[in-house]
Amino acid sequence: MVSIMKIIFVAGDPKPERWTVPIQALLPEAEVHVWSPDAPTCNADYAIVWQPPAELFEREKNLKAVFNLGAGIDGLLQVPNLPRHIPVVRLEDAGMSVQMAEYVAYHVIKFSRDMTIYESQRAENVWRIHRPIERKTWPIGVLGLGHIGKRVARTLADLEYPVYGWARSQHQVEGVQTFAGQDQLKAFLGETRVLVNTLPLTPETRDILNYELMTSLKPGAILINVGRGEHLVEEDLCRAIEEGHISQAVLDVFRQEPLPADHPFWGMPQIAITPHVSARTLRDDMLAQITGKIRALEAGQAITGIVDIERGY
Amino acid sequence: MVSIMKIIFVAGDPKPERWTVPIQALLPEAEVHVWSPDAPTCNADYAIVWQPPAELFEREKNLKAVFNLGAGIDGLLQVPNLPRHIPVVRLEDAGMSVQMAEYVAYHVIKFSRDMTIYESQRAENVWRIHRPIERKTWPIGVLGLGHIGKRVARTLADLEYPVYGWARSQHQVEGVQTFAGQDQLKAFLGETRVLVNTLPLTPETRDILNYELMTSLKPGAILINVGRGEHLVEEDLCRAIEEGHISQAVLDVFRQEPLPADHPFWGMPQIAITPHVSARTLRDDMLAQITGKIRALEAGQAITGIVDIERGY
Repeated sequence: MVSIMKIIFVAGDPKPERWTVPIQALLPEAEVHVWSPDAPTCNADYAIVWQPPAELFEREKNLKAVFNLGAGIDGLLQVPNLPRHIPVVRLEDAGMSVQMAEYVAYHVIKFSRDMTIYESQRAENVWRIHRPIERKTWPIGVLGLGHIGKRVARTLADLEYPVYGWARSQHQVEGVQTFAGQDQLKAFLGETRVLVNTLPLTPETRDILNYELMTSLKPGAILINVGRGEHLVEEDLCRAIEEGHISQAVLDVFRQEPLPADHPFWGMPQIAITPHVSARTLRDDMLAQITGKIRALEAGQAITGIVDIERGY
Repeated sequence: MVSIMKIIFVAGDPKPERWTVPIQALLPEAEVHVWSPDAPTCNADYAIVWQPPAELFEREKNLKAVFNLGAGIDGLLQVPNLPRHIPVVRLEDAGMSVQMAEYVAYHVIKFSRDMTIYESQRAENVWRIHRPIERKTWPIGVLGLGHIGKRVARTLADLEYPVYGWARSQHQVEGVQTFAGQDQLKAFLGETRVLVNTLPLTPETRDILNYELMTSLKPGAILINVGRGEHLVEEDLCRAIEEGHISQAVLDVFRQEPLPADHPFWGMPQIAITPHVSARTLRDDMLAQITGKIRALEAGQAITGIVDIERGY
């Protein structure tokens, strides 16, 4: 008797068939189940999850791997009973890094090329030419040099901006001067006029975007946060803007999403706000990646993207 | 007796010393003269010019080369008496292609990523998420595959857009599907949702952005003109917008600059207008390039950027 591979899909989507139909098409040999709190165990081999309930891991005891439907693993690591003896796999790229790179590039160009000024002039039918960009006066620092941070840094380096990168450990990125570890953070910040945060959220990086960091940047710096809301100490940003340390901020992520209607950020014109759209996970790309990894595991091959649970990413 | 190299500088700048001082610093062995209608000939070896008067070439009969202070040579070719027996050299890049690439990328991202919508929502304190980008629905066509066109196409291909390129003759650009000649223009246009014009202005390309071209693009296409104002038949754009063939246009160049206050474009919200700033010639980069070429010619070496006067660029 051949045992049939079983997959359990667990996400809050009210239309789970948007996921299970393509999973089934990609893995025709598998049985694909949708999680239900009332159903008995299906004795699944693999779980594909987004914010799963703790009961999942109580009920499904024979999982060979857990696949997270996102690159950020901070939410999943909070789930009690998350098994530690099997691979927990995060999404790698799946179309996200290029989106992040263009979101960041868009905002950098907007500031460096005075696009806001030219757009205001257009609205008032004004023809007026301003000084051309001096690229060397726009050094950009990228916090985090994972898949996304590297791509962001490379895109900006291709546009001939001076680009610096910082990560916990030493990385090499072509055209980017890199810094590593707490010891070199201050030197990195001192070179930076536009700071882009792409770090994973861990206990070490929580609150890293604080007043001390902001006042270590070049005066009147710009902050772009595409990491997690919990990286940013929100009241410190308000203070740094009021005191002129930060001239502009571009925020795509927030401690509470949607950003509450009475949040002070809405009242600050120096803060650009987007509703967590800088990089969207694209279903087809995600599922192709995950099902490809399931096939690899079944064939006894190594896969990438396995989370180091102690490290937190 | 050693003969001293003489350079004549001819441009409308009321402060010509902004140019002649750095030229002198780069070529200390040369004599640098500023053109004056009243001065006698200085028997110059090289002319560095922007929109020179016809008298220049009547007076200076021993020029070994003419250097244009711009990439577009269409203005210079109109000057009577332009000598045809010596190299006429146009500016190559000098920091312009990267500027053009980021100007175009900024506008492409603005449309493809709904940035205008998110910015309007921000202004009204609205948090609302729209559908993510499907990159394959944003094919971009680049008209002209010279130094600038290639750079624009490469930048957009790096951002994983489908990119097509068209030029008079066949070109190869990595990651870009290229089309050549009049025969393939229609096929190229039919693939294109965002058309970017980077062509040189010649008798053949004048008025190329006309009603027939615009109606050959995908329905509701976007037009970005960073070439020359004379490429665009302005009334055809108004008609194509009114009829819905073109949904948005981004214009940096115009037949008359500054764009007259009573021009119909100002009244059309579908048209973004910038005052000829998509790529600025940067003085230091320009003069380093030109003086480097003068040194090469003096040393009997070949130089690039020599205009084919019959072809017009």
